[in-house]
Amino acid sequence: MYKILDSIRNPEDIKNKSLDELTILSDEIRLFLLENISKTGGHLGSNLGIVELTLSLFHTFDFKKDKIVFDVGHQCYPYKLLTGRKDGFENLRQYNGMSGFPKRNESPYDYFDTGHSSNSISAALGMARARDIKKEDYHVIAIIGDGALTGGEAFEALNDLGFHKTKMLVILNDNGMAISKNVGGMSNYLTHVRISPNYNRLRKKIKNKLNKKESNVFTKAIRKIKDSFRELFINSMFFDDLGLRYIGPVDGHNIKELNRVMMQVAELDEPVVLHVITEKGRGYKPAMNNPNLYHGVGKFNLVTGIQKSNKLTYSDAFGKALVRLAEKDSKIVAITAAMADGTGLEEFASKYPKRFFDVGIAEGHAVTLAAGLGTSHLKPVFAVYSTFLQRGFDQIVHDVCMQELPVVFAIDRAGLVGNDGETHQGVFDISYLSMIPNITVLAPKCPEEIEAFLTYAFFLSKPVAIRYPRGSTNYQFEPLKEIRMNHWDILADGKDIALIAVGNMCSIAMQVKEELEKNHIYPMVVQATFIKPLDIKMLKELAKQNYKIVTLEDGNLIGGFGSEVLRTMNDLGLSIKIINIGYEDHFISHGNVDILYEKNGIDVNSIVQKIKKL
Amino acid sequence: MYKILDSIRNPEDIKNKSLDELTILSDEIRLFLLENISKTGGHLGSNLGIVELTLSLFHTFDFKKDKIVFDVGHQCYPYKLLTGRKDGFENLRQYNGMSGFPKRNESPYDYFDTGHSSNSISAALGMARARDIKKEDYHVIAIIGDGALTGGEAFEALNDLGFHKTKMLVILNDNGMAISKNVGGMSNYLTHVRISPNYNRLRKKIKNKLNKKESNVFTKAIRKIKDSFRELFINSMFFDDLGLRYIGPVDGHNIKELNRVMMQVAELDEPVVLHVITEKGRGYKPAMNNPNLYHGVGKFNLVTGIQKSNKLTYSDAFGKALVRLAEKDSKIVAITAAMADGTGLEEFASKYPKRFFDVGIAEGHAVTLAAGLGTSHLKPVFAVYSTFLQRGFDQIVHDVCMQELPVVFAIDRAGLVGNDGETHQGVFDISYLSMIPNITVLAPKCPEEIEAFLTYAFFLSKPVAIRYPRGSTNYQFEPLKEIRMNHWDILADGKDIALIAVGNMCSIAMQVKEELEKNHIYPMVVQATFIKPLDIKMLKELAKQNYKIVTLEDGNLIGGFGSEVLRTMNDLGLSIKIINIGYEDHFISHGNVDILYEKNGIDVNSIVQKIKKL
Repeated sequence: MYKILDSIRNPEDIKNKSLDELTILSDEIRLFLLENISKTGGHLGSNLGIVELTLSLFHTFDFKKDKIVFDVGHQCYPYKLLTGRKDGFENLRQYNGMSGFPKRNESPYDYFDTGHSSNSISAALGMARARDIKKEDYHVIAIIGDGALTGGEAFEALNDLGFHKTKMLVILNDNGMAISKNVGGMSNYLTHVRISPNYNRLRKKIKNKLNKKESNVFTKAIRKIKDSFRELFINSMFFDDLGLRYIGPVDGHNIKELNRVMMQVAELDEPVVLHVITEKGRGYKPAMNNPNLYHGVGKFNLVTGIQKSNKLTYSDAFGKALVRLAEKDSKIVAITAAMADGTGLEEFASKYPKRFFDVGIAEGHAVTLAAGLGTSHLKPVFAVYSTFLQRGFDQIVHDVCMQELPVVFAIDRAGLVGNDGETHQGVFDISYLSMIPNITVLAPKCPEEIEAFLTYAFFLSKPVAIRYPRGSTNYQFEPLKEIRMNHWDILADGKDIALIAVGNMCSIAMQVKEELEKNHIYPMVVQATFIKPLDIKMLKELAKQNYKIVTLEDGNLIGGFGSEVLRTMNDLGLSIKIINIGYEDHFISHGNVDILYEKNGIDVNSIVQKIKKL
Repeated sequence: MYKILDSIRNPEDIKNKSLDELTILSDEIRLFLLENISKTGGHLGSNLGIVELTLSLFHTFDFKKDKIVFDVGHQCYPYKLLTGRKDGFENLRQYNGMSGFPKRNESPYDYFDTGHSSNSISAALGMARARDIKKEDYHVIAIIGDGALTGGEAFEALNDLGFHKTKMLVILNDNGMAISKNVGGMSNYLTHVRISPNYNRLRKKIKNKLNKKESNVFTKAIRKIKDSFRELFINSMFFDDLGLRYIGPVDGHNIKELNRVMMQVAELDEPVVLHVITEKGRGYKPAMNNPNLYHGVGKFNLVTGIQKSNKLTYSDAFGKALVRLAEKDSKIVAITAAMADGTGLEEFASKYPKRFFDVGIAEGHAVTLAAGLGTSHLKPVFAVYSTFLQRGFDQIVHDVCMQELPVVFAIDRAGLVGNDGETHQGVFDISYLSMIPNITVLAPKCPEEIEAFLTYAFFLSKPVAIRYPRGSTNYQFEPLKEIRMNHWDILADGKDIALIAVGNMCSIAMQVKEELEKNHIYPMVVQATFIKPLDIKMLKELAKQNYKIVTLEDGNLIGGFGSEVLRTMNDLGLSIKIINIGYEDHFISHGNVDILYEKNGIDVNSIVQKIKKL
């Protein structure tokens, strides 16, 4: 089916291909990716953009021994495809199927598991130093996007690398995008490099070769770079100042040039930053025209493109609620770390551009910035995914909670996210937030009630986290209109057993109740509106009436909500039977959320069985 | 006693002083600081270095309305002194006395509580943006050391600031030191600016004024800058590239020049980086000659200087043990984030320079670097203070534990540190580590047994944290020679009650036992050698024999060790009486550790009372 692609048995085969063959191969890889990702879902744009660069890496290096670290990692599909994992794409990101990220336990070609941003240079530097200490001989390469470069850890690593001059290669894969359009002084600087006179002068001298080979499938719209060109050794002070040799920019879609530069770079015995310009979504017009939408996708129709679902997600509901509240309260301001789309902040951003701050991929800074805004009597909301907020943990403790500043954390993708797997599951936030003094942690049970939670958070004027899952909820609830301070809400009456559920576990709890009623067990269902502080009054009342308690949370058990219910009851000297349901002490891999619930024993059936035993 | 200093009633008085008076005032402030800090202990070097800069800030700005954020904050003593807190120095860093860091609840002149590094630009940027949104009018200033500039968050903030062009002033207080000598490409770059031809040419033209005013008290040894000089508008591409206006460097001990530049800078309507060169320890020869030793001090004799105690601290013991193990095992490598001295790594660094990495203040990078080294079958140890490791939380989860890499975290200053207060107390590590899958968390009870713990950690070849407190231990223990896997150690037999103690709580537990025996209560004392995983076998045995359990930990209770003992027992269906002793859900302020133990109910007497009630 694929003339050249099917002939690649191992990455060494790529070294023998002619330039024409490589050009055909890159077309075939794009077709393969489009056909497969449109069926399974996955990361699209960044993988379409990195095809030629990946081929050039295989042309120059030998990844049996040379080591590569993909920053974030969602751009590793062509690499996986060419390292013997073509069949894996059938079950990409499915339970027990191939991961959408590099995984050391999946292939000896994967040297570091990634998922979060901006850590690749640090990890690769560790490998390079280990090589030098052990007097071994191989190349170490970190490949990092311009978006990821705004994360502080990348700078920390460049600073260390430039000082100690460890030999390694940093490839800056610059598509002008993080997940959304990139921001930051660094981004402006890179744009400046791209449009500098030297760069343009040379570019004009060189004939446009690209248009010739555009097929029908691949679009003619190439916004940023229209020509192939020779690399420029621009005297880039930024990287030079840090002690790094800067080479570039190079056209990331011109294999010939890439190969030539890459061969030269491989000879250098020092730390090098190679600046490569690529285009996100390259070769697929809908993705080039709308790179945000095609960053990570579900299944879609290749011809008609992505159709947005009209089911109300938590992110949508949060975004709309915030806009409504912001209309009435000019003190409300919003912060995102390069995720305005994902977190539902687009409308806020366009309506209130002066009250909206996209700080780039920089969660630590985002949290402290919110703290600074909070000292000045504004009402900052930082909307962020649960797993990425881990990067701002110290800042939550030290900059927000210690001073009890009025910062609202709108924590999206809390609980399982599913197909992105262990690096993205939001199962730790209950534990890492509950342990911090002065914070209030809340969870809505359905998107429709987020506005009430936000209203309460602004009213409280202290550190507040509101956690809610990816997507929507399956159960039809009557949304809370008002949050009563430190008060849990009874969703259904019952006797003997109280199911106390956090957030989206409320819908599971209601289904559990329905199942149990068939067996003449009639549990009460309580929404733990407040994860912290607990509703002590209700706990005492339940103890008094001798209820057995079952806690349900979409988070890990250690240090979690149920654990704290147990500790509090013990501390109060109330001894009643308590069962905690949540995730045991292990990372949770990729797969469909429903399957993962089942495998981890927090689906309706498993919980019903546990309660029957009670 | 102090002619000028005593005449300062409020900061406005400084504006009226002549240049000569300001010069005398700066001498007086140094004398005041030396006399007071030598009696109370505190941060010395950085405060001696910032005297003229502080005066110049007061000369130019009005901190009744203008806002300032001190990065780290330990350089705020002259600022406190001049904002009505002179009397506070008598009880500096004592319980209920004045804090050694900025505190909003201490003075309206303090705008942001700091303690950790590299967050000042972010916080100040929040204030500046709030000002603009509210259409108010005041200056916002962040003052940050060159050491703190290596922290990624500072870069994240500069990147944001340069892009969005918010008006504010960043003062780079450059003394070439973090806490130890500064490292990193950025540091090299700043040195390069300092020694650039332009800089030197101008410097030579200007007469040396400084030597004239040197008194007997103040030394003549000025290593880095010998002359006063005019500021240079060096075309610094680093900051320019990020979109920031760079001005400097300026002699930070020349008040006249500082005032002139500061007045000019105050007029600029854009983000500005003002580069000021200062000398750590300025004016006190021992501190200039040995800036590490005089960074933070206890009481000392002004004439004879600091005498090092010869009691074996945990840091010393760790350093010596690591050197011994590294002699036999060439795979052991060590990492510090600018704290080689504090963590006991100096000897390792000098014996094994190629296996030692000081990455600057950059904890996130340090953790991932260790992960990278771990993938390559080396045995990295990251030695770090408990509170600072919070900055690497995400990296511990995502880069180390998810891949189960063999990284050892040597966590110093775990538990209360005392006088540095809430920003430095190491009370969260048990909670934020225990919640992470795949990690083993250990605690020695005395410095002498650290080697056994390290040996075990290397043997295990997985993520391991070893936590130990500041200073030494008061109790004479028989050190463990060997760590048995997942096994707790019985320190003293007993009956009915088992005191299960973590780390330095073992010495408290032994004293509690001694007290209780006077009342004919004979508890068993157990060392919880493993904080994670728990010794399930022993817990089952204790339950079987119907012991009551009292857990003792020098950490917060939520998500802590005791909480996990309780959860595990409940999960196993073992219902016995358990009491958890540790810190309640609040931040713990500064003060002597013994007083803080008492105030928080974890001193011997309080625990004895609690157990008697049992």
